[in-house]
Amino acid sequence: MSEQLDERPAPPPAGEPAGAAIPSVGMVGAGQLARMTCPAAAGLAIGFRVLAAAADDSAAKVWPDVRLGDYRSLADLRGFAAGCDVVTFDHEHVPGPHLAALEEAGVVIRPGADALRYTQDKLAMRERLTALGVACPRYAPVRDLGDIERFAEQRGWPVVLKAVSGGYDGKGVWVCASPAEAAEVAGLDLRLLAEEYVSFDRELAALVARSPHRQGAAYPVVQTVQRDGICREVLAPAPGLAADRAEAAQSLALRIAAELDVTGLLAVELFDTPGGLLVNELAMRPHNCGHWTIEGAVTSQFEQHLRAVLDLPLGAPGPLAPQVVMANLLGGTDPDVYDRYIHVMAADPGVKVHLYGKAVRRGRKIGHVTVLGDDVAELRDRARRAASFLRWGTEDGD
Amino acid sequence: MSEQLDERPAPPPAGEPAGAAIPSVGMVGAGQLARMTCPAAAGLAIGFRVLAAAADDSAAKVWPDVRLGDYRSLADLRGFAAGCDVVTFDHEHVPGPHLAALEEAGVVIRPGADALRYTQDKLAMRERLTALGVACPRYAPVRDLGDIERFAEQRGWPVVLKAVSGGYDGKGVWVCASPAEAAEVAGLDLRLLAEEYVSFDRELAALVARSPHRQGAAYPVVQTVQRDGICREVLAPAPGLAADRAEAAQSLALRIAAELDVTGLLAVELFDTPGGLLVNELAMRPHNCGHWTIEGAVTSQFEQHLRAVLDLPLGAPGPLAPQVVMANLLGGTDPDVYDRYIHVMAADPGVKVHLYGKAVRRGRKIGHVTVLGDDVAELRDRARRAASFLRWGTEDGD
Repeated sequence: MSEQLDERPAPPPAGEPAGAAIPSVGMVGAGQLARMTCPAAAGLAIGFRVLAAAADDSAAKVWPDVRLGDYRSLADLRGFAAGCDVVTFDHEHVPGPHLAALEEAGVVIRPGADALRYTQDKLAMRERLTALGVACPRYAPVRDLGDIERFAEQRGWPVVLKAVSGGYDGKGVWVCASPAEAAEVAGLDLRLLAEEYVSFDRELAALVARSPHRQGAAYPVVQTVQRDGICREVLAPAPGLAADRAEAAQSLALRIAAELDVTGLLAVELFDTPGGLLVNELAMRPHNCGHWTIEGAVTSQFEQHLRAVLDLPLGAPGPLAPQVVMANLLGGTDPDVYDRYIHVMAADPGVKVHLYGKAVRRGRKIGHVTVLGDDVAELRDRARRAASFLRWGTEDGD
Repeated sequence: MSEQLDERPAPPPAGEPAGAAIPSVGMVGAGQLARMTCPAAAGLAIGFRVLAAAADDSAAKVWPDVRLGDYRSLADLRGFAAGCDVVTFDHEHVPGPHLAALEEAGVVIRPGADALRYTQDKLAMRERLTALGVACPRYAPVRDLGDIERFAEQRGWPVVLKAVSGGYDGKGVWVCASPAEAAEVAGLDLRLLAEEYVSFDRELAALVARSPHRQGAAYPVVQTVQRDGICREVLAPAPGLAADRAEAAQSLALRIAAELDVTGLLAVELFDTPGGLLVNELAMRPHNCGHWTIEGAVTSQFEQHLRAVLDLPLGAPGPLAPQVVMANLLGGTDPDVYDRYIHVMAADPGVKVHLYGKAVRRGRKIGHVTVLGDDVAELRDRARRAASFLRWGTEDGD
């Protein structure tokens, strides 16, 4: 266990009494995931620092220990890491060679560069999972339209094309119904992966944590509801999911976390098909599928991630209500979301509103709402009404 | 309603898009109550600013928008208030004349100076509550030992002496068994109040919120367990409390909030006696008796306070578990609390640890732990074990 914290004790933060060895976690990126990690860091009273691109990044608005810098600059990353016992991530876009260089220089990165590679390179992820015997959609690397057409001859149209790296929230994924559509994507000058179009019953996500001590913890398996490639709702737990399939999803995620030596959180996005579970995507950080845990689980995913990367014992992942529903809030056309609080809060005193402090742009994730209760249909209705009103000023929007 | 927010629109915080009228709350004081308000402010994405005495105050360590200043200086208060739509408080020690001067200058203070007076002057509080017909311990203002002895002739020894202003956490309260003990307190050159020594079954607290729109919300009534005048445990709800007495406590707190025109939270500390409920103390801010609401209630007291002072509709105050227990963590002799996380988290993955980032001094409130479940005896045991281990490094301490 070469990554033990006590090998690199940090100086106590200013204001702490002498003798208190409080570790410091640095998070690269200052989006909403970093923002929602701040309260967990405050509760544990650990050191926490974020690397932000700008002073008005989402997390930088709510946390004092912010360094400005570019995650694509090795110098900036080195400077940032110098004050941290552990470095972790709000996103997966730090260049792999930089991650390797930091580790070489003795920086403790959790998850490590070897694990993160599988979130940055979808072809490497597919190859590794396939080698592990994990069921995935059938895939092939494709260099040009000819490759895509050969893939389609075997798997049929539509063909799903994915950028091997750099995609998120539906960006970098194209469902192509014809060679003409595929030709457009093939012309984008990107490394591409072709995948079969999977006809699934629904999408699930299994969120687990794993620590350097190899402790694992699995949250209840959730259903995610996407529209236009963007997650719109999370139902926790996934309604009506058979216990054996839920357990299979948790075991699969824990196994992947172990095989890939993930430290921190691992979110495994899954297709639930009549033939079984197929892995769609991996993420190694707090994830949209786990926002419900802030109010809905004993330990929030954000605290869990900090505990895991600090190699502290993991927290209980159990739920606090029979059913939790989270709905993402996307930007509409009117930036004045606050003005609509009065209606939403008066209409439903039980809805929990989370805004990310981000400028409102149409379709951008700017917040989420969470409701806890018993009946999934009622909770979905409540969450959608609140999100719709905050977005559009009417409960009947999308 | 002269305090409507829209009469004093603030400029949008830096980085917000034009058109978004986001209000800003200023909290005077940067202790743990302000610290725990920060996540609620982040979730609502409102403006939030704290007035801290020092850069390493508890809240200043976890929030970026901090002004340094002295709450006893009117100039500092004026400067602080200039950037805020609403000013509220982490403690009740701002001098009354300063509060009046701020209101006179048009600053929106919630709660207002007229209400806060009853948390600053215990004699005024007793007189006002008595005028309202609210049952309190029998009391009298006392100027010297002679006054105290005359009070004791009627009410017997021991006599409880209280500083009329400035007390907290058992400070400023003396239980005197004899004239000799009372003489010591009488010699302190303080304005004093004598109260009968009430032989109560237990202590309760009723926490409510009230908004300028006169909306009220009442949390479940809790039992507070004190030792040496310091709250050590909170049991939510108060175990075995008859429904009619719980309702009486909630109604009483809502009535006091209305009569005193409180905006924000009001905590009413009560003695539960065979003859009924007696009011012990009032506080108009987030309160130790409500820390359990962070995990244990739909709406935390910190979010509720912000909603109330912003005149937003109040959140649901209902519980998320049949029983919640909070135990305060007091400082022990070893400052390295973090070093003991591993044991506490491994022993009980369900315990929620909150540290306040304060220097460890013996007997000082430096954090709390919360557990949710069904059985109060088991939960008390778990909470006490965790708090004891964090304090002393053993589960068998106090």
